[in-house]
Amino acid sequence: MTPRIPIIHGITERGDGREELDLEFSNGERRLYRRQRARGNGAVVMVAISEPGVVLLTREYACGLHRYELGLPRGRIDDGETPLQAANRELKEEVGFGARRLQVLRTLSLVPSYMDHVTHLVLAQDLYPERLPGDEPEQLEVLPWRLDALDQLMLRDECSEGRALAALFIAREWLARNPDGITDV
Amino acid sequence: MTPRIPIIHGITERGDGREELDLEFSNGERRLYRRQRARGNGAVVMVAISEPGVVLLTREYACGLHRYELGLPRGRIDDGETPLQAANRELKEEVGFGARRLQVLRTLSLVPSYMDHVTHLVLAQDLYPERLPGDEPEQLEVLPWRLDALDQLMLRDECSEGRALAALFIAREWLARNPDGITDV
Repeated sequence: MTPRIPIIHGITERGDGREELDLEFSNGERRLYRRQRARGNGAVVMVAISEPGVVLLTREYACGLHRYELGLPRGRIDDGETPLQAANRELKEEVGFGARRLQVLRTLSLVPSYMDHVTHLVLAQDLYPERLPGDEPEQLEVLPWRLDALDQLMLRDECSEGRALAALFIAREWLARNPDGITDV
Repeated sequence: MTPRIPIIHGITERGDGREELDLEFSNGERRLYRRQRARGNGAVVMVAISEPGVVLLTREYACGLHRYELGLPRGRIDDGETPLQAANRELKEEVGFGARRLQVLRTLSLVPSYMDHVTHLVLAQDLYPERLPGDEPEQLEVLPWRLDALDQLMLRDECSEGRALAALFIAREWLARNPDGITDV
């Protein structure tokens, strides 16, 4: 049985979105926990289906690891945007396609034990060519990949992001169970 | 074709592991990028197989989201530990089992565009009961879950961590292709 949620006896701001929580667990244990609050409106990651069974991957410079990373188009939600609007804008900026059908399949967390950052996993179908200028320093390489070949992607060093790998498998599983795809927006 | 990796013209330390990189992309674009260097030795996340086709999930308080999260046992690698030693220790602390067979399937990144944090995905098989005292404020709930029922897990709000969901799907796919499992350590 899941215990009762801990009681927060106090929250101390530590600057830059960092907080220290004074917690009491249901068994009486008292602990100080730290967490990082996210700035902004969250993020979107897109599984864009270019033809049945094929997803569009991007290859983009990843500064954290200082190498090119094979992954999914994604981006931040701007002020005033819905997740679906952000997803469609980012698709146009990063892969040069808009989508007529978009749906949030679920929200993914990054490090739930420490951060409250959320990413909306958006399935995009019925694509059409449209490019918007983005803020990328170079145009991203776009690579179609068959969803039935994720096993050949999942162990590649250059495709390492947990969130992207989860999104690919979830979308494949969802599409297998919902063959008619998503409804019109 | 993947462009040549950007040239780093300079790195400025901003404190707390934050860095600013002066980058020149292969097309001549010059940009300042920020990144966060990880402290410590990285992390491990474990897919522990308790019987054929069954993985052990944990339900643990997640401070970032202030709720209980259904996920995988995981933890930090201590100084002097290998990833497999850390995995086995954390399994004993968090789920009350050691493993006779452990293997790193791959390394996952968190946010490769911004962080250099890495998590080793460890498959653990041939479990035996052994509990070590951990630093958790309460004993974690352990929940066996069938790998062929990931579709019933992947959309649950309480199971939200991209890294854990990716690890589950990757391990399932790997086990389907390697039915004899991993070799002895």
